[in-house]
Amino acid sequence: MGHIEQTPTETTTADLSAGLRAVLDGRWAATRDRVRDHIQAKALVPQAGLSLEDYRARILDQMRDIAAMGIPAEGFRKSEGGTGDPGSAVTSIETLGYGDLSLMVKSGVQWGLFGGAIENLGTQRHHDEYVRGLIDLDVLGCFAMTETGHGSNVQALETTATYLPESQEFEIDSPAPSARKDYIGGAAQHARYATVFAQLLTAAPGEERRSYGVHCFVVPIRDAAGADLPGVTTSDCGYKGGLPGVDNGRILFDKVRVPREALLDRYASVATDGAYSSPIESDNRRFFTMLGTLIRGRVTVGAAGGAAGRLALALAVRYALFRRQFDGPDGGEELLLLDYRAHQRRLLPLVARSFAFAIAQNEVTAELHELQTRDPADVDPDEIRRLETKGAAIKVGHTDLAARAINEARTACGGAGYLDENRLALLRGDIDVFTTFEGDNTVLTQLVAKNLLTEYAHDAAGMNAAGWVRFVAKQARDVTLEKTAARQVVQTLLDDSGEKPEDSDLTHAGTQLRLLRNREDHLKRTCAARLRRAQDDDVDALEVFTATQDHMLTLGRAHIERLVLESMVETIAALDEGPVRDTLETVRDLYVYSLLEQDLGWFLMHRHVSVERAKAIRRGVNELCGRLRPIAGDLVDAFGVPEVALDVPMLSS
Amino acid sequence: MGHIEQTPTETTTADLSAGLRAVLDGRWAATRDRVRDHIQAKALVPQAGLSLEDYRARILDQMRDIAAMGIPAEGFRKSEGGTGDPGSAVTSIETLGYGDLSLMVKSGVQWGLFGGAIENLGTQRHHDEYVRGLIDLDVLGCFAMTETGHGSNVQALETTATYLPESQEFEIDSPAPSARKDYIGGAAQHARYATVFAQLLTAAPGEERRSYGVHCFVVPIRDAAGADLPGVTTSDCGYKGGLPGVDNGRILFDKVRVPREALLDRYASVATDGAYSSPIESDNRRFFTMLGTLIRGRVTVGAAGGAAGRLALALAVRYALFRRQFDGPDGGEELLLLDYRAHQRRLLPLVARSFAFAIAQNEVTAELHELQTRDPADVDPDEIRRLETKGAAIKVGHTDLAARAINEARTACGGAGYLDENRLALLRGDIDVFTTFEGDNTVLTQLVAKNLLTEYAHDAAGMNAAGWVRFVAKQARDVTLEKTAARQVVQTLLDDSGEKPEDSDLTHAGTQLRLLRNREDHLKRTCAARLRRAQDDDVDALEVFTATQDHMLTLGRAHIERLVLESMVETIAALDEGPVRDTLETVRDLYVYSLLEQDLGWFLMHRHVSVERAKAIRRGVNELCGRLRPIAGDLVDAFGVPEVALDVPMLSS
Repeated sequence: MGHIEQTPTETTTADLSAGLRAVLDGRWAATRDRVRDHIQAKALVPQAGLSLEDYRARILDQMRDIAAMGIPAEGFRKSEGGTGDPGSAVTSIETLGYGDLSLMVKSGVQWGLFGGAIENLGTQRHHDEYVRGLIDLDVLGCFAMTETGHGSNVQALETTATYLPESQEFEIDSPAPSARKDYIGGAAQHARYATVFAQLLTAAPGEERRSYGVHCFVVPIRDAAGADLPGVTTSDCGYKGGLPGVDNGRILFDKVRVPREALLDRYASVATDGAYSSPIESDNRRFFTMLGTLIRGRVTVGAAGGAAGRLALALAVRYALFRRQFDGPDGGEELLLLDYRAHQRRLLPLVARSFAFAIAQNEVTAELHELQTRDPADVDPDEIRRLETKGAAIKVGHTDLAARAINEARTACGGAGYLDENRLALLRGDIDVFTTFEGDNTVLTQLVAKNLLTEYAHDAAGMNAAGWVRFVAKQARDVTLEKTAARQVVQTLLDDSGEKPEDSDLTHAGTQLRLLRNREDHLKRTCAARLRRAQDDDVDALEVFTATQDHMLTLGRAHIERLVLESMVETIAALDEGPVRDTLETVRDLYVYSLLEQDLGWFLMHRHVSVERAKAIRRGVNELCGRLRPIAGDLVDAFGVPEVALDVPMLSS
Repeated sequence: MGHIEQTPTETTTADLSAGLRAVLDGRWAATRDRVRDHIQAKALVPQAGLSLEDYRARILDQMRDIAAMGIPAEGFRKSEGGTGDPGSAVTSIETLGYGDLSLMVKSGVQWGLFGGAIENLGTQRHHDEYVRGLIDLDVLGCFAMTETGHGSNVQALETTATYLPESQEFEIDSPAPSARKDYIGGAAQHARYATVFAQLLTAAPGEERRSYGVHCFVVPIRDAAGADLPGVTTSDCGYKGGLPGVDNGRILFDKVRVPREALLDRYASVATDGAYSSPIESDNRRFFTMLGTLIRGRVTVGAAGGAAGRLALALAVRYALFRRQFDGPDGGEELLLLDYRAHQRRLLPLVARSFAFAIAQNEVTAELHELQTRDPADVDPDEIRRLETKGAAIKVGHTDLAARAINEARTACGGAGYLDENRLALLRGDIDVFTTFEGDNTVLTQLVAKNLLTEYAHDAAGMNAAGWVRFVAKQARDVTLEKTAARQVVQTLLDDSGEKPEDSDLTHAGTQLRLLRNREDHLKRTCAARLRRAQDDDVDALEVFTATQDHMLTLGRAHIERLVLESMVETIAALDEGPVRDTLETVRDLYVYSLLEQDLGWFLMHRHVSVERAKAIRRGVNELCGRLRPIAGDLVDAFGVPEVALDVPMLSS
C-alpha cells in the first residue's frame, strides 16, 4: 500500500530490535535474561479462575524457586547474609512484571518490605536472627504499616508500642478500630512475623511517658500451625480488584507483649530503664530518615509496573499487526488495525513513553544500587533525599503510564482484550493498585513538588499543610531551576540550542529540553509566589495551600516529564551513530511531541509555544506515528517479553 | 473552617437533593423507583468470589423476578404480546446499573438484543412463536452477531446461510475459524436459541447463487437438557475482566439446517423456489436499515453505564466526606478528603458531567420511545438515522464517562477502593467492556463524524473508507452547522449572547453554547476541506482517510459535548427559578468549564479563546469546585442510588 513505508528487511529489523533491547536492558541485562528464562521455563503467567486459596499457595510455591535462584539474597549485604547486589535484586523483581504480578508483589512484600525493614531499620542482632531465614522463606513476614484510618499520613498511625520497664517489654496495641493494620500483604494467611509500625511510648526514669513518634517492631503474629498468637487477631481482606495470589489481610493487637529487642533500633533505642535515645534529635527528622531507607520498595513498584505496561503494549501491538478490520483498498484485504492513524495514536505514543520511562527507571535503579552498596557512613542525607524524590517521581510517572497503557491496550483489543485468557483484563486488575500502594500517586506528586519548592530541606518533611506553607513563605531563596543542568550532556545541548525555543528546531533535543525546563521553572516560580502570600499573618495558610494544590501537582508532573527526558537524552548521547540511535531519537521525539500535545493549553496560555508551532506539534505526532508504524513490531520486541507471556489465543485465531 | 462555606440547613439540602433528583429521574420516575425498591428489597448487589457457575445461576434467578415485575413485557408492542412502553423498559434496565451489571447485561441480551431482533426483524409468525416465551424466560436466547474475525465490520461477517430449495431450508455454516460467533452473552450455557447474523446466499430459479448480504435467522442451538444440537458446537469464553454472571460463549455451525421460516423476514424474504425479495433494493441500505432497528441496545447500554458511573461517584464522594487524612488546621482534626482542592477536582467535574449526560440520556430514551410507539409507517427513515447517530453519540460519551468516573472513584478511595467488598473494583471490571460492546467507542465516534459530514446520507452507510472519502469529496453542499439551532431555547440564548464569545460572560449559557457550536462548526468545515483533497483522481483516497481520521474523531467528540450541553440547557430552561435551577446552572458551568479546560489547547490554537480567558477558565474550575463542595453530598444523593448499593464497609469504618 502506497501510504505506508515498507518494512526494512528481516535481518535489519532483528538487529534493530536486539540493539534497542540492549539499551533497555542496560546494566543488569544478564539478570533480566535469567528471570526471563525462568518465566519462560516455568510458564509464570497469571491464571484465571483459581480460588484465592489455590492462587496463594501457587504463588508461595513459585517464591521458593525465586529464592533458590538466589535473587532475594542479592538484596541483602554480605555482612547480613546476602550477596550484596541490590540493583540486580530490583531488576529481577522488575522482570517478574513480565510474568505474574501476584508473584512480583508477594516477593516484594517478603524480601523488599519485610526484609528491607529488618535490614535497614534493624541492627546486627536482627540481621543475625532473621535475614537468612527470610531469604530462604523459613521466616515469612509482612509489613504492617498502613492502618484503616491512616495510609498516606503514616506519621499519624494509631497503633501504640508502650515500653514497660518492669518486664522490659513493649506492649503493642490497637487502641481504636481505625488503628487496625489493613491491606497488609501476607497478613491474611502466610506471614508469621510482622514488622509493625507504631507510636513508641516510653518514659525516662522520673519523667512522664510520651510518644517519640512512629518506630518499627518485629512482632510474631502466628504460630507454626498458622493460628493467630494470643492477643493477635488477623482477618482476610478477601477478593480484590486483582493480585489474587497476594493474601492481603488485617491485624488487630490487643496488648501483645514483645521483648525490648523487638524494636528495630538502628535509629533509636530504649534502655532497659525506659530511657529513649537516638542519634537524630528531631522526632520528625528521625521518622523521615527511617522512611527514607525504605525507598527500594517504591523503586521496585515503579519498575515492575513499567514492565507490566510494556507487556500489555506488546500484546496490543502484536494484535494490531494481526487483526484486520474494515476499509481495505477497493476490493483488497481489510486493513490491519495498526494501519489506522487513530490506532497508531492510541498505542505508539504510549510505546514511546514506555521507552523513555524504562530508561529513566534504569537510572534510578543504578543510583539506588550505588547508594545501597556504599558504606552508609559515606552517604550524605541530601543524596538520600534527592533519590527519594526521584524515586517518588518515577514511581508516579511509571505506574500512571502503566495503568494507562494497560487500559488502552485492553480496549484496543476489543472483546478479545476482555477475556482473561488474553491476559490484558487480568493485568488491568493487577496494575490498578500500583498507583495507590507504596505511596498514593497524588500524595507522592505533591511530595515531589514540595521537595522542589523547599529545595529538599529536611526540616520541611512532616510539617502539616499550614506549617509547610508558612515555611515556604519565609524562605528567602530564589526558587528557579538551577541555571546549569546537572548533566553535562544536557547542558551542552541546551547551550547548542537557541535561548528562544520558538526559533529552534523542535526535533532538536536542546529545544525539547529547554521547553520542558522552562515549563517547570515557570511553574515553580509562580507556585512559590502564590505560596508566599501566606507571609502575612492574617492570611489563612491552609487556605493558601488548598488554593495552590492543583498548581503544585502540575509542577510535580512537569518535573517528572523533564526528569525522564533528561535521562533519555543522556542515554541516547552515549550511543554510537546508527539505526538504534536514530530510532531512539524518533521515539524521543514522539515522547516529547505527545507530551507537548497533551499540555498544549498550558504551553499556549503561557506563550511558551506559538499557535503555528502548536499546529506543527499536532501534525508532528501524526507524522511520527507514521514513521514508527513500520517498526512497531520491533519496538515491542525490544521489550524482551518472554514468549510464554505473549502466547495468548487472540494472537493465533 | 474559614475557607469552606457552611452547608445549608438540613431541610434545605434534603429539598435540594429531592428537587435535583426529580429532574434526573424525569419522565419515568415511577419506573426508576420501582426498580430501586426492588434492588433494595432483594439486595441486588455484585458478589465477590462466586464461581462462574454459581454467579450465572444467581443472575438467571434474578431475571425471573424482573420478568415477574412485567419489565420485559414493556419492551414489546401490545400486538406482539407486550405492554408497549419501551421508554419504561429502557429506564428499568438503566436503573439495574445501580444494582449488578451482570443482571443488567444478561437482561439486555435476552430481552433487548435477542428479543429486539425477533421483534424488529421478524414478522407476525415470529412474534407469535417467540415473544411471550422470551418475555417469560421460557425461551432463552442469545444474539449471535459478532464473530472472532469481525466485530465492528459486521457487514463482512463470514457465517453463511445458504438456501436449499429442495428441502426449503437454510443451511447455517461457519466456513472458517474466524467465522466463529464469539463473546456471545448466553451462548456458553443458558441460551437455547440464537438470532444468528449470516450472509444470505440464494439463487432465483435459473440464476447463479449469490449473497444478498447479512440477514438474521432464529436458530435453535441447544436441546431441553442443555446439550448442543447436532452440528452446533458451543464453547465457553470463561473468565473475563468482569460481568461474571453473563455466560459469554462461542458458537460454530457445521451445516446446520433450519426451515425457511427461520429467516426474520420483515425486510427480506426468500420464496420457496429461492427467489429473494425485499422492499429495499440496495443490499447496503437494507442492511443498515436492519441494524438501525436495533438501536435500543445501544441506548440501554449508554444509560446503564451512566448509572454505574453515578453509583461509583456516590461511593467516592461519600467516602471523601467520611475519611480524613493529613493537614488539619494546626492542632485540629485532619481534613476530609473532599476539603482538598485536588480531590474536588478529581470528583466534582465528573459529578457535573454525570448530571449533564443523565439529562441528555433521558432525552434520547424519550425520543426512542416516541419512535418505537408510533406506527412504523409514520416513521421517516431520516428520523431513525438521526436518532441512531444521537444514540451512538450518547453511548460513546456516557460509557467513556462511566469508565473514567469508576476508575477515578476507585483510586480516590485508595486501598479501600481496591477491595471487592467496597464494590468499586467490581464495578471497574464490569464497566470496562461497555466501551467495547454495542459498538466500539472509537468506531462509533467515527460513525457520528461520518454522519455529520455526509448530513446523514443513507447512501454513505457501509461504504469503505476510500469510497466514502470520494463520496464526501464530491458533495457540493456546505457542511457548516445549521445556522438555526433545532431547539428554540438554544436559539434564543444564542441570540441573546454576543456574536463574539470572547466578549461575553462565560457563565452565560448562550456564550457556552456558542463556544461549543463554533468548535464543532470549525472542525466540521476543516475536516470536510481535508477530505475534499480526494477530489483529484490521482490522490489516494484511503491515504486521505487515514490522515484525516484523528480530525474526524475530534469532530465526533466535539459534537457529543455540544449535544449534551444543548440538552442540559433546554432542561434547565424549563425549570422554575429557585435553588434547584441555580444549582443545575452551577453544575452546567462546571461541565462546560471543565470541558474547555480539557481542550484548552484547541480553543487557544484556533483563537476561539484568548489567553486571558484561558486563565479565567482554569481559575473557574477551581472556584466552581469550591462552590459545589458544600452540597457535594446532596448532588450524589440526587442520583437516588439505593442505600443497599452504598452499604459498604469503607463507609462505616
